Amino acid sequence: MSEREETPSGVQDNLRRVTELLHKHELVENLVQRQQGPRQELVENLVHKLHFVELQKLLDALHPADIAYILETLPLEQRLTVWDLVKAEREGEILLEVSDAVRETLIAHMDERELVAATEQLDTDEIADLAPDLPREVIQDVFRSLSPEEREQLRSAMSYPEGTVGALMDFDMISIRDDVTVEVVLRYLRRLDEMPELTDQLFVVDHAGRLEGLLPVNKLLVTDPETAVATVMRRELVKFHPDEKAQDAAQAFERYDLVSAPVAGGDGRLIGRVTVNAVMDYIREETDSDMLSAAGLREDEDLFASVWKSVRNRWTWLAINLVTAFIASRVIGAFEDSIAKLVALAALMPIVAGISGNSGNQTITMIVRALALGQISAVNARKLFAKEIGVSALNGLIWGSVVGLFAFLIYHSWQLGAVMTGAMVLSLSVAAVMGVTIPLVLQKLGRDPAVGSSVLITAITDSGGFFIFLGLATIFLV
Amino acid sequence: MSEREETPSGVQDNLRRVTELLHKHELVENLVQRQQGPRQELVENLVHKLHFVELQKLLDALHPADIAYILETLPLEQRLTVWDLVKAEREGEILLEVSDAVRETLIAHMDERELVAATEQLDTDEIADLAPDLPREVIQDVFRSLSPEEREQLRSAMSYPEGTVGALMDFDMISIRDDVTVEVVLRYLRRLDEMPELTDQLFVVDHAGRLEGLLPVNKLLVTDPETAVATVMRRELVKFHPDEKAQDAAQAFERYDLVSAPVAGGDGRLIGRVTVNAVMDYIREETDSDMLSAAGLREDEDLFASVWKSVRNRWTWLAINLVTAFIASRVIGAFEDSIAKLVALAALMPIVAGISGNSGNQTITMIVRALALGQISAVNARKLFAKEIGVSALNGLIWGSVVGLFAFLIYHSWQLGAVMTGAMVLSLSVAAVMGVTIPLVLQKLGRDPAVGSSVLITAITDSGGFFIFLGLATIFLV
Repeated sequence: MSEREETPSGVQDNLRRVTELLHKHELVENLVQRQQGPRQELVENLVHKLHFVELQKLLDALHPADIAYILETLPLEQRLTVWDLVKAEREGEILLEVSDAVRETLIAHMDERELVAATEQLDTDEIADLAPDLPREVIQDVFRSLSPEEREQLRSAMSYPEGTVGALMDFDMISIRDDVTVEVVLRYLRRLDEMPELTDQLFVVDHAGRLEGLLPVNKLLVTDPETAVATVMRRELVKFHPDEKAQDAAQAFERYDLVSAPVAGGDGRLIGRVTVNAVMDYIREETDSDMLSAAGLREDEDLFASVWKSVRNRWTWLAINLVTAFIASRVIGAFEDSIAKLVALAALMPIVAGISGNSGNQTITMIVRALALGQISAVNARKLFAKEIGVSALNGLIWGSVVGLFAFLIYHSWQLGAVMTGAMVLSLSVAAVMGVTIPLVLQKLGRDPAVGSSVLITAITDSGGFFIFLGLATIFLV
Repeated sequence: MSEREETPSGVQDNLRRVTELLHKHELVENLVQRQQGPRQELVENLVHKLHFVELQKLLDALHPADIAYILETLPLEQRLTVWDLVKAEREGEILLEVSDAVRETLIAHMDERELVAATEQLDTDEIADLAPDLPREVIQDVFRSLSPEEREQLRSAMSYPEGTVGALMDFDMISIRDDVTVEVVLRYLRRLDEMPELTDQLFVVDHAGRLEGLLPVNKLLVTDPETAVATVMRRELVKFHPDEKAQDAAQAFERYDLVSAPVAGGDGRLIGRVTVNAVMDYIREETDSDMLSAAGLREDEDLFASVWKSVRNRWTWLAINLVTAFIASRVIGAFEDSIAKLVALAALMPIVAGISGNSGNQTITMIVRALALGQISAVNARKLFAKEIGVSALNGLIWGSVVGLFAFLIYHSWQLGAVMTGAMVLSLSVAAVMGVTIPLVLQKLGRDPAVGSSVLITAITDSGGFFIFLGLATIFLV
């Protein structure tokens, strides 16, 4: 991993400058095209070069992450213009930084030779990250170019599924033997030209490569060089197994304020390391995909994706909602006689369903969050049920009275008001019970309680709310 | 900040052991209470001590973050039992780690003397973090106990509002002069017993304390000691101003893979530093509060908060939704004559409103996310409008046809089916336009587009969907 100088963070400014240059270029090109004559092509080429040289200079000075940001923000055509100006040896790093959707558009624009060249620049763990998006032939070519050790690393990195520690792991660690002195370690380090990024500690191993302890780099600086590594290293350490859940590693990094941590196999041998930046990227992606899936977006969408692609991305969710809406519609259909006799029911029923849906979603959000933090056990689940039912019963009484009063004021029927209040209390209680039950059951079934909980609760509170309200009305009013 | 040995991450195991010990203790206490006689008190005390000694030993060995986790997971009574067993000198660190809601319950249980003792253990930037939750007298006592330099730091740390770089900042940095050699720096470091956590680089300042460059600790290890600091330090650096948005700092940390970064005032003087862990905590809190506010929870809720407290936490949101539900109800009320004539309308209308609401929320999620990533400018906003309207028109045609067919199959009226389809296309288009407009307008008004967008779009798609469908039906069918 190269140690690139970081540029100050005026990212928005850079974006503005890039679009200005692109715009200038387009303007001049339009002008030139309107001209006729033999010199047209010459002028066009000249102008082209003039602005592109400036743009290229700007791009060369930018951090890969900043170029990635600019690429994500530009519409497809301009994006590809900029992409063509990026130096070949930086393309790999930038591909790693852009979002999945944008990466797809860039890779589709590159030929096999370019892809191989870009990928070969990367570390093995980075190649593994890109691999799912690359054509099979490219991977094979790259694989052939690697050393046997690197091939082993790549194979290892690609073998761990997403969401495991193995998928976050890199191999940029420095390991030292436990039977040497600090002096020897210092000499060894000085021979390296630079240390890998995020090296806050060296990993101490025994003769068989088994992890024995950690030697913080800062400790190296304040320790007498004569001291043996074994006496200064820390033996109590946070280490991970490559099959462990990435989620657990992320929590450990947050809890214990780690910068890096070793990954060791079942036999205790050091395999790789996880860094705080891999963890931060993981957290960002997780929360991002939670947010997207909460709104029923299958995946991150390129802002400038085609209409057809976007429609497909949002398809599943709308289809599911349509089914639940149809069911709710049939529940109402069953009470059409009652509605025909008392048309006020049609106007009042969405209130009950809507408020129950909101209340149920509040409960679900609490529970999903507590589950993610590992705060719910068999012991306290019962207390939670009691509390949530208490909250919703109280809410039902308060808001039920308000809507009851509303119904009375508009339709001058205290019976209608009483049915409204009763329906609210019942329906909010159902929402509370289901709001606790649904995520717990999903978790028990080994599924992510964050995904799908909200659709389920809304489906239940909609159909349930209509059923309770119209049912009570049919019994007591019609 | 003390360098505490980290324990392996069996957090769930620890929780289980704590609850087992608490449970044992309760069981025996019950047994003893049923016994009568003069020795009862003696036995009770003994048993009490026996289990508490074991529990205390366990707690002493745990990382503050793990104790915080255990406290958050226990119901109030047990939580306070455990809290009483925590060593006084560790209470400050643990208070920093627990959630706001749980911190409140712990602080309410402590007297002024205890609070002062706990707080005095902390660094000034940590005291500033706790300060809003502490009684005024405690802060004054603590303030009096600080050195003049620390008072200055505390004042500075407390002066920056939440969400700024200043609020993330700590003062645990090592700064060195630019006119010395690496040798001198190494000697200086060796005199320190240990370096502050997360010290990946030293900050190089001139004689007036102005930030000149950065010297990575790893560079120190691989550089010839004779070299002058000024020749090895990095001059291009990412630095922040304390008034900058924390959000921007977080993005820079993610983009440039930073571990720490200097904070300098307008005059270029070094004030403090930001570390990756402060940033990670900030990101976690931000996404957490986004998630909570998306469900209308005002703040993080203690899982075992009283029913009354929870009701208050969820109050505002339900009240707002009630208002929008009332409005939607009156929209329906305006069409009661039509519904009375054609009762099928009552059963079909929630479909239109529901699907439009979902589709609008998908658009809003896309736009809010793009705004947060800084991907939307005046230039591409128009393209976005066009794309979203295209998507929703296509979705309207597809799903509108499905619901139209549904209506036809059930009610055997092709006119009703056609009105359904038309209403879906119109209503989804309104949802798309509002889905792009609402977050852009909120952003323009200087408000967080993530907060409130969803309520607004749902309010509009509900009332709008009912109005469009019932309106079209009244014109063409009744």
